[in-house]
Amino acid sequence: MNRNICIYQEFLTEAHKDRIRETARRTGFTPHFFNLDQFEEAKDCLLTNSNVYGVTIAEHVVMVTLMLLRRMPEYIEIVRGHGWSNQLPVRSIRDNEFTILGTGDIGRHVADRLRGMGAAKIVGLSRSGKPHPAFDEVYPISALDDVLPRTKILVMALPSTPETVHILNRERIALLPADACVINVGRGTALDQKALAEALNSGKLAGAALDVMDPEPLPQDDPLWDARNIILTPHVSGNMTLGYTCDENVARFCADLENYAAGRPLAGLVDRNRGY
Amino acid sequence: MNRNICIYQEFLTEAHKDRIRETARRTGFTPHFFNLDQFEEAKDCLLTNSNVYGVTIAEHVVMVTLMLLRRMPEYIEIVRGHGWSNQLPVRSIRDNEFTILGTGDIGRHVADRLRGMGAAKIVGLSRSGKPHPAFDEVYPISALDDVLPRTKILVMALPSTPETVHILNRERIALLPADACVINVGRGTALDQKALAEALNSGKLAGAALDVMDPEPLPQDDPLWDARNIILTPHVSGNMTLGYTCDENVARFCADLENYAAGRPLAGLVDRNRGY
Repeated sequence: MNRNICIYQEFLTEAHKDRIRETARRTGFTPHFFNLDQFEEAKDCLLTNSNVYGVTIAEHVVMVTLMLLRRMPEYIEIVRGHGWSNQLPVRSIRDNEFTILGTGDIGRHVADRLRGMGAAKIVGLSRSGKPHPAFDEVYPISALDDVLPRTKILVMALPSTPETVHILNRERIALLPADACVINVGRGTALDQKALAEALNSGKLAGAALDVMDPEPLPQDDPLWDARNIILTPHVSGNMTLGYTCDENVARFCADLENYAAGRPLAGLVDRNRGY
Repeated sequence: MNRNICIYQEFLTEAHKDRIRETARRTGFTPHFFNLDQFEEAKDCLLTNSNVYGVTIAEHVVMVTLMLLRRMPEYIEIVRGHGWSNQLPVRSIRDNEFTILGTGDIGRHVADRLRGMGAAKIVGLSRSGKPHPAFDEVYPISALDDVLPRTKILVMALPSTPETVHILNRERIALLPADACVINVGRGTALDQKALAEALNSGKLAGAALDVMDPEPLPQDDPLWDARNIILTPHVSGNMTLGYTCDENVARFCADLENYAAGRPLAGLVDRNRGY
């Protein structure tokens, strides 16, 4: 049995590393702390993830949802020019309807927060279409074309798999109402960025907030940067910059290491074929 | 008995006006729709308000709280330059602590939403210090100097009265920790803007979001516009630009008109001496 374990170390404090070293010592493993560019070297290991990004990504989604509904891209420009104009009609999370593409950990954390702020209806879409209490209705992804025309805010929280690449293509963007907003916190490949920018600039879509893009970094001269009513962030929604995320990540890694040492199933095991 | 009623008409649709006309007709009053600059002419009327801004102001507070905690003033600048840097440590509403100055309708709506997103502790301050279930603890305003040094996010939602003018003065701003953020959605007169800008620029305060200023509009050359980590909005948090606010406002006005006609107490009667 290979007794080496590799842990992605970005943002880990010495206290986090000490906790991992202690768990490794107790279970008879040798820890190696590595960086993202060494990920390929570990391609034959068992891979686990911590599914711990729900809190930080959901807070990001609530923030950009409110920024879009409350016209902040426009108000930020007004204020930048030291202007004082405040009559833009705004919308609300309360009594509003949401479509969430992806009903996993992230989609559920988003749904819980929207519910807490009075959302009227939250529809989920997933591979299986299996119901979940966080959503009023869940449909299989195959129902997407039926759901898009009655979508007000579309939150995309999908993993990158062959099935999700350009799932929101040009034709589907055209199915959205002109007052709809699109938020993507999953993977940049999930939507057609060129078609999205065109829809925004021509007023066929009200706004968008993208935290993930294809490629990353987005090229300096990409037209997406300056599309109308777009909020871009450089992949910040789910990284390890929130202390809670780091703490939980380390706690769940150590728990799975104990599981592995005891021969129990791993809570965070990734199916490398399925892609998540 | 004077049978004239005056209603502030900005943002009212014809459907809203029809509803008011119908209620007035039924109760034997003559409605007059007026603008804000005619407010002085009505200074001898009974004055009611609708206390209906809680939803829209609370959504604004959640938005700017997340923008400050998630470093959006800095990320907006990075993205404006088409940059890609994403390592700023962020903070969360979950597990965080909040101090809300003002435990009325607005403060309670804010507290409910922060609670729903996992806030660890919500302290309220009010004139009376009377407990309310939306808050973990409520203190009288006289305890402010004790509460400020352990405040992480200060939300100010106070009416404009002689007691609240510059309640957050230079000395009290200095009592806040350097990682604290200040959010003001009450009245601009409640804080010393010059001292706030200096505290932000010198790093003695982490960030601020002001939706109200003194005076409004803020003068073009005011240093507040370009203070570090500030989010200014031109008094948009609680105006009538959200449909829900308008609908509720009309509904409550009509209910109070029926109360008045029937000789019942008015739900929204303003005490002109107290100021709210």
